[in-house]
Amino acid sequence: METGTMEKNKQVLLKSRPKGWVSEADFELAEAPIPQPGEGQVLVRNHWLSLDPYMRGRMNDTKSYSAKAEIGEVMVGGTVGEVIETRDPSLKKGDFVVGMLGWQQYGAAPAKAFRAIDTKAVPAQAYLGVVGMPGVTAWVGLLTIAEPKPGETVVVSAASGAVGSVVGQIAKIRGARAVGIAGGPEKCRYLVEELSFDAGIDYKSSSFVRDLEAATPKGVDVYFENVGGDVLEAVSRRFNPFARMPLCGLVSQYNETNPVGLRNLHSFLVNRVKLQGFIVSDKPELWPRALQELASWVASGKIKYRETVAQGLENASKAFIGMLKGENFGKQLVKLV
Amino acid sequence: METGTMEKNKQVLLKSRPKGWVSEADFELAEAPIPQPGEGQVLVRNHWLSLDPYMRGRMNDTKSYSAKAEIGEVMVGGTVGEVIETRDPSLKKGDFVVGMLGWQQYGAAPAKAFRAIDTKAVPAQAYLGVVGMPGVTAWVGLLTIAEPKPGETVVVSAASGAVGSVVGQIAKIRGARAVGIAGGPEKCRYLVEELSFDAGIDYKSSSFVRDLEAATPKGVDVYFENVGGDVLEAVSRRFNPFARMPLCGLVSQYNETNPVGLRNLHSFLVNRVKLQGFIVSDKPELWPRALQELASWVASGKIKYRETVAQGLENASKAFIGMLKGENFGKQLVKLV
Repeated sequence: METGTMEKNKQVLLKSRPKGWVSEADFELAEAPIPQPGEGQVLVRNHWLSLDPYMRGRMNDTKSYSAKAEIGEVMVGGTVGEVIETRDPSLKKGDFVVGMLGWQQYGAAPAKAFRAIDTKAVPAQAYLGVVGMPGVTAWVGLLTIAEPKPGETVVVSAASGAVGSVVGQIAKIRGARAVGIAGGPEKCRYLVEELSFDAGIDYKSSSFVRDLEAATPKGVDVYFENVGGDVLEAVSRRFNPFARMPLCGLVSQYNETNPVGLRNLHSFLVNRVKLQGFIVSDKPELWPRALQELASWVASGKIKYRETVAQGLENASKAFIGMLKGENFGKQLVKLV
Repeated sequence: METGTMEKNKQVLLKSRPKGWVSEADFELAEAPIPQPGEGQVLVRNHWLSLDPYMRGRMNDTKSYSAKAEIGEVMVGGTVGEVIETRDPSLKKGDFVVGMLGWQQYGAAPAKAFRAIDTKAVPAQAYLGVVGMPGVTAWVGLLTIAEPKPGETVVVSAASGAVGSVVGQIAKIRGARAVGIAGGPEKCRYLVEELSFDAGIDYKSSSFVRDLEAATPKGVDVYFENVGGDVLEAVSRRFNPFARMPLCGLVSQYNETNPVGLRNLHSFLVNRVKLQGFIVSDKPELWPRALQELASWVASGKIKYRETVAQGLENASKAFIGMLKGENFGKQLVKLV
């Protein structure tokens, strides 16, 4: 079998907690024995690792919505892989599963910690993106918090990313106007030409504020927030009365030692805006319906997606830092086999 | 009758739009003829004028949730008065009514712009406070946005004011822990000893942050926000997961040319906090039930209130500025007769 005694399990460990910007030196590449699955467990060989902005928060020594990563331990992360040894009747050798095995090549865990996936319907790695956690995040935030109505204007930041690209496309499906904010003309063109957004606005452009005004002639009814900072400031000046703002992420601030917050709170008062922080894992009851709708939209071509793929665990930390800087285009993945 | 031809209608007009802190020079005391009521109108002699923080926003030349005040026009404001001439069958001479006649002694308006009040049940001026707009504001924000559960901790700022004092007392009626933030030891004592809050915290004290921590040992589930600024910053560090923050006012910022906003947005993300700006006039359908409950709580002694009364229109602007600085204690009124 693949797990011969000479083979090792490559892992990426958290080496130190970053102060400000995370660097590659905060991670450590290590090797460990390939684990043996216990009773009721399976051993999985990971094919794909997901890289997501939330991981930056886990690196801090502060209260967050879930346990922080510990120094010297494997970095947390979503994975897709193949069952190579099973001690549970619910999964068999060769099954592909999605789970949370972290930044490593192999992992053993209880069978019930995995979900079996159908890699004929969509590619395996899509279960880490458009039909996985990021897609469900877009679905839950947009459809249960923002609830856009036909004709309303939906703005989303980090719009070409794994979450943002799905937000805009669901907004279009629901009959809303979709305006995406992204970094650079190539991503903005992609939003309009490939994903059928109504407008793509480059936050790096000197004309950003004017461009946003021009793209939202009727104001902003929904702002799906992934980034924070100056982009939030600009959008908050465009709010219509009773606007809704699902707060999904603040990636522009995760590496700042002095985050800027929300300057224009006054707009939330006079426009009666609802801001709602949310985390998709709080709503497990919504996942089945969300995944089913997302899969059908992908199958029918109503939702498209793009991936940026790093090769091998040794490139994971570099790709992660690049993603936090917006260097990826679409879902950031690491291919492990 | 009282409106002899020699008598004039004293008024306070908006003279100039303040830059930063409002001053008495931004107002002008004027005289005008007492108006004649048209068909379907009544003429009212105002007995009481309400002073409320929202009026500061109307003085600005910026988009707000309702029309700004115009230079040279009578300042807007809630009033209670007596019908002294009627050209509508629905109101008769001698009726007491609550309306929005503004900073003046007399006003004529369509009868349907007024609500007749029962001054035997509660004093006339209470219809501008605890059983009026401020009371309903507390009721709507707390019960329809925050929805505190028994045992939860409710924090309210400007807690000895017209809105805040009702918020804390309704929280207690609903079985929650009520923590009020106010300026100075006298107000804080009043919250605990007279209004039965669980704690009163002085935001002017050097130990404010520690006092707030001590008063919220189980964190904060609801923050009813009236002030903004440093108080908001401190409370946001105490949020429990799924906290709710009705955003009713930002009085500490209304006179700032560079308002501070909300620095700790990160807490709203990781704790999945809901922030909701609201304005009580958006919910006319809730007023009858709210007023009925408030009146019954006042009658049964479950809700107590206090008033600060300025005498005469010539003292209105000074009292208004004092209120914005927190110099009032309870509902700020101007007695006009």
